[in-house]
Amino acid sequence: MGQAPIGYVLFAEEMNFNPKDPEWVNRDRFVLSSGHGCMLQYSVLHLTGYDSVTMDDLKQFRQWGSKTPGHPENFETAGIEVTTGPLGMGVSNAVGLAAAERHLAAVYNKPGLDLIDHYTYCIMGDGCCQEGISHESCAYAGHLGLGKLIVFYDDNGITIDGHTELSFTEDVGKRYEAYGWQVLTVEDGNTDVDAIRKAVAEAKACTDKPTLIKVKTIIGYGSPNKADSHDAHGAPLGSDEATATRQQLGWKYGEFEIPDSVYDVFKAHGAEGAKKQEAWNKLWSEYQEKEPELAKQFQRVCLDRKLPEGWADCLPKVAEGDSAKATRLWSQDCLNALASTLPDLIGGSADLAPSNMTLMKCTGDFLKDSYEGRNMRFGIREFGMGAVANAISLHKTGLVPYCATFTIFSDYMRNAIRLAALAQAGTIFVTTHDSIAVGEDGPTHQPIETIPSLRMIPDLTVIRPADGNETSGAYKIAFEKSKLESMPTFLALTRQAVPNLPNSSIENVEKGAYTVVDPADPELILVGTGSEVGLCMDAAKEMGNKRIRVVSMPSWELFRAQPAAYKDSVLPKGVPTLSVEAACTMGWEEWATGHIGINCFGASAPGGTCLDKFGFNVPNVVYCSLRMLKGETGILSDGSQGKH
Amino acid sequence: MGQAPIGYVLFAEEMNFNPKDPEWVNRDRFVLSSGHGCMLQYSVLHLTGYDSVTMDDLKQFRQWGSKTPGHPENFETAGIEVTTGPLGMGVSNAVGLAAAERHLAAVYNKPGLDLIDHYTYCIMGDGCCQEGISHESCAYAGHLGLGKLIVFYDDNGITIDGHTELSFTEDVGKRYEAYGWQVLTVEDGNTDVDAIRKAVAEAKACTDKPTLIKVKTIIGYGSPNKADSHDAHGAPLGSDEATATRQQLGWKYGEFEIPDSVYDVFKAHGAEGAKKQEAWNKLWSEYQEKEPELAKQFQRVCLDRKLPEGWADCLPKVAEGDSAKATRLWSQDCLNALASTLPDLIGGSADLAPSNMTLMKCTGDFLKDSYEGRNMRFGIREFGMGAVANAISLHKTGLVPYCATFTIFSDYMRNAIRLAALAQAGTIFVTTHDSIAVGEDGPTHQPIETIPSLRMIPDLTVIRPADGNETSGAYKIAFEKSKLESMPTFLALTRQAVPNLPNSSIENVEKGAYTVVDPADPELILVGTGSEVGLCMDAAKEMGNKRIRVVSMPSWELFRAQPAAYKDSVLPKGVPTLSVEAACTMGWEEWATGHIGINCFGASAPGGTCLDKFGFNVPNVVYCSLRMLKGETGILSDGSQGKH
Repeated sequence: MGQAPIGYVLFAEEMNFNPKDPEWVNRDRFVLSSGHGCMLQYSVLHLTGYDSVTMDDLKQFRQWGSKTPGHPENFETAGIEVTTGPLGMGVSNAVGLAAAERHLAAVYNKPGLDLIDHYTYCIMGDGCCQEGISHESCAYAGHLGLGKLIVFYDDNGITIDGHTELSFTEDVGKRYEAYGWQVLTVEDGNTDVDAIRKAVAEAKACTDKPTLIKVKTIIGYGSPNKADSHDAHGAPLGSDEATATRQQLGWKYGEFEIPDSVYDVFKAHGAEGAKKQEAWNKLWSEYQEKEPELAKQFQRVCLDRKLPEGWADCLPKVAEGDSAKATRLWSQDCLNALASTLPDLIGGSADLAPSNMTLMKCTGDFLKDSYEGRNMRFGIREFGMGAVANAISLHKTGLVPYCATFTIFSDYMRNAIRLAALAQAGTIFVTTHDSIAVGEDGPTHQPIETIPSLRMIPDLTVIRPADGNETSGAYKIAFEKSKLESMPTFLALTRQAVPNLPNSSIENVEKGAYTVVDPADPELILVGTGSEVGLCMDAAKEMGNKRIRVVSMPSWELFRAQPAAYKDSVLPKGVPTLSVEAACTMGWEEWATGHIGINCFGASAPGGTCLDKFGFNVPNVVYCSLRMLKGETGILSDGSQGKH
Repeated sequence: MGQAPIGYVLFAEEMNFNPKDPEWVNRDRFVLSSGHGCMLQYSVLHLTGYDSVTMDDLKQFRQWGSKTPGHPENFETAGIEVTTGPLGMGVSNAVGLAAAERHLAAVYNKPGLDLIDHYTYCIMGDGCCQEGISHESCAYAGHLGLGKLIVFYDDNGITIDGHTELSFTEDVGKRYEAYGWQVLTVEDGNTDVDAIRKAVAEAKACTDKPTLIKVKTIIGYGSPNKADSHDAHGAPLGSDEATATRQQLGWKYGEFEIPDSVYDVFKAHGAEGAKKQEAWNKLWSEYQEKEPELAKQFQRVCLDRKLPEGWADCLPKVAEGDSAKATRLWSQDCLNALASTLPDLIGGSADLAPSNMTLMKCTGDFLKDSYEGRNMRFGIREFGMGAVANAISLHKTGLVPYCATFTIFSDYMRNAIRLAALAQAGTIFVTTHDSIAVGEDGPTHQPIETIPSLRMIPDLTVIRPADGNETSGAYKIAFEKSKLESMPTFLALTRQAVPNLPNSSIENVEKGAYTVVDPADPELILVGTGSEVGLCMDAAKEMGNKRIRVVSMPSWELFRAQPAAYKDSVLPKGVPTLSVEAACTMGWEEWATGHIGINCFGASAPGGTCLDKFGFNVPNVVYCSLRMLKGETGILSDGSQGKH
């Protein structure tokens, strides 16, 4: 209710959108970062004429199967750009949407032909403002000078705990100025619509900085007994108070009763938006004539969002005699091959580019004066990075975003990874240094539970490739999932060199698991992922007199999706199967009957020493294999022998 | 090398500490937040006379089993207060240490008897400064006005990617002023030791605000070829460059050769520290005479760090006829019972106190003018909260910290939870709204993989109690783990009411799992956790003609630690066992042969509807039970029937 005047100014006056085509590429984007106030957004979508929110939907607020869930969900309701609710996520998404706009504008706009030229608006509350993720992304937005990003800070002074004095007394405006933002204030956001209009005009006039508009509002404005109190935060007013509120506001209409005069105003603005799209369509025709090459690219990348025939041919393949090499280096080859061929790819690292090996050499940095560059310099801001990358995908213009950090620090952006899977954002999460083989940096930097715990996130594909071909396979899948399905992929890559496998291929990665060494009638199967597949190979060789099958299993999710017959052929029931992964063993029961893993924290020492001490060496794999052959099952080696 | 002058001023002049008693309760605390520079810290510990770091240890830097790992680890090396490495964690810990100091000072100090009166110093770099967690904790420190917190910002303009202009151009000083900090600048941190001294004096003179001292330094100062470059960030200089550096600095000593004159200065300051502790010991004697009651409390809580006899008797027990009640409400009863009895307990919520039910009614708010209060108002800053709470435990003065949020948003502080387990911090993580039963808020707020994924973190105890007695048991364990072992516990509590179980008790929780309903010669076992145990009971009742055992399993970790005979008695091999948990099924293979869970995201609808639609209802449990009795195994119900 406190945000209603902002909603009015944006959806009845300022914003360009076409309710009849919610995916019009040059629409203004809007993000309600304070997602619990989503009834505002549903209402304006309904009023302006979106088919996705009917009056019946409004009545079904927060009910099973409705288009009006308790927080805005882009995958449920056309007209919603991103999924918000986790605080700070929305405003960080807004930064990503604004960054995508600047990039496309820099690449495609030509004098007189501004193909991409839209604003990104956002409303955030105190919660978003306190969350660290918003500090990260807003500092990044200031650094980038995203002039077309306009964020309203709904300064109502109320959070769930009570008045903000309890926990939140900083000078928010000064902080945003420190980030390099323009900061404006609207003193009375409850009634002074004109002041909001003026602030938006001033925001638009400042083209080299994002703008924060502090709007002082009263939460639950108009409610005689619950305004300015945390009772109005998450809970409904109740029917008596709703009646009293109508009375106080002089609103004579009943529940769900909307006078035509209101519809008229909003629908008229919606219709204007349709006309704006028509004008844009003409511009696009002109563009196609004058810039045929770029137009073709824009058509494929941004509008059709397809991949060119044979695009994956550029991915590196292991050649006979190629020596051992870290998968993070293979990843570098993949990224650079893709970047050279496909302008779709954009991304970067949280200040670990030289470690993650994620720099694209064919393009420059995406910075304030070079938005055409595709190397994003996210800074040491993992969570903000994840949310920004997600939004680049959710800009729905075919960009394929990747973002990189050490595997362990995916924990810092875990909720952004989850949201990518939920909100269907095609982010490629590139992580390196994926096990205790990290070495000297020690247990704070050595993932144990990280990869297994990510396999639990619904709809996320986790891939841990074992060599060059598998890394190429991982990128092929990740790129397709991003571009064609708008779904995320998480890659776990090694710091250390790993040998190339005899039977690896892109196609085999697509199956999730496959046999690398396959004697007839195997008596034991060793199944590994990533760097441990080579170890399994060595152990199998050492046991030359036994019939040992070695299976490489880069992705559980992809393997799970295979036909039962294929799964049975790779991991037949009844054959003792030993899993070998330098990670916690939980979950491996799905695939194996015995396990080598590490269920304790690592230690600081050279990577090879760590692997050896915690049991990832040939003698231990052989020893555990022999125990398996004697009938043992369960966790045979859990790293505890390495604790000192 | 750039930070060496700061290290000198702190460890040879300013700080109070006794190398011969690293745990002296009133020592100044020091945190190296930029933990990769830990050789600085090891060096000064060695020079001042700590036994924990010998010359041999210095030579074994980053080697297996050494006391000098690649990042500072408090559990390895006496004299290190907290474990750093994950960027932003250290400075956030420093905030927690400073908060603990203010609280103890407010509770125990009397005129002329300042029992607790120490500074907390911290050095952080650009990385810490960019991370959202530091924004959260430093905003909180400013809000609290922690005047005895002094943070050096090593402003060397270099990160791993290169110069900070690439990603980090904000005005850091202005931002900290906005948080309410005093901000000072040392223009030449490489050589101007006196300016550092003066800044520290000025910091100490400002008693109502934390101080940030921006120290402009050159990374790798003295190295002729690698100074001011990211080559000096994480990698060693190399022996040639080390020689050249010695030459440039006019340092005539060899590798690991320290002239006595250097030892003399540092050791003298260490000896002074020992005298300061003697003086404090006298003060403590005087205190014991003049304030016998408080002294007794201080002795138990802070020095002995023990629990009084019978302390757990205060925990609530379910009485005959008690009706169904949410475990978050039982948790409220537990917290309040403990808070009234034990001054050890301090903590709060990330702005969800009225939802988490974590407010202690017997005490006030811990705020700038009321540090004696024990209700911390962390604001909407989960990650910062986790790190602050960890540090309150690592202050090693017997405080038992808890921090609270929704279960799903534990993701925001996941790395702080991990660090609690690694660094042995006794934080009690209280989380509520622990399943899809959250309801209307929808999938962004409904944990699926959260609880199972936390079970993967080594050394973390996760407890999901099923009723009132189990909640009391969970608190008994959590409190003991915190106070006596300095280890963390994660609690997952319901939003919705759950029935009380016939056989629940504190002692049964300590065993991790136990039988609730136990017919002779069971043909099927239903094993559930938390809110699903009641569902199992109802299903078992519905199948009255079958012999169904129901097992409640509040904690995997506690059950795993039981003797094999007990485990076999509760979950005998050979009896089909069906797990029922409103969470992802991965990992349950350890305990059960069939599974009911949810492996997809939830949906926005009333909580009861969500449970029902996703298969958590009596008919579905009965149906799956009957399938089990016919020999089926594996995932029998994964929630996919509820996807719409």
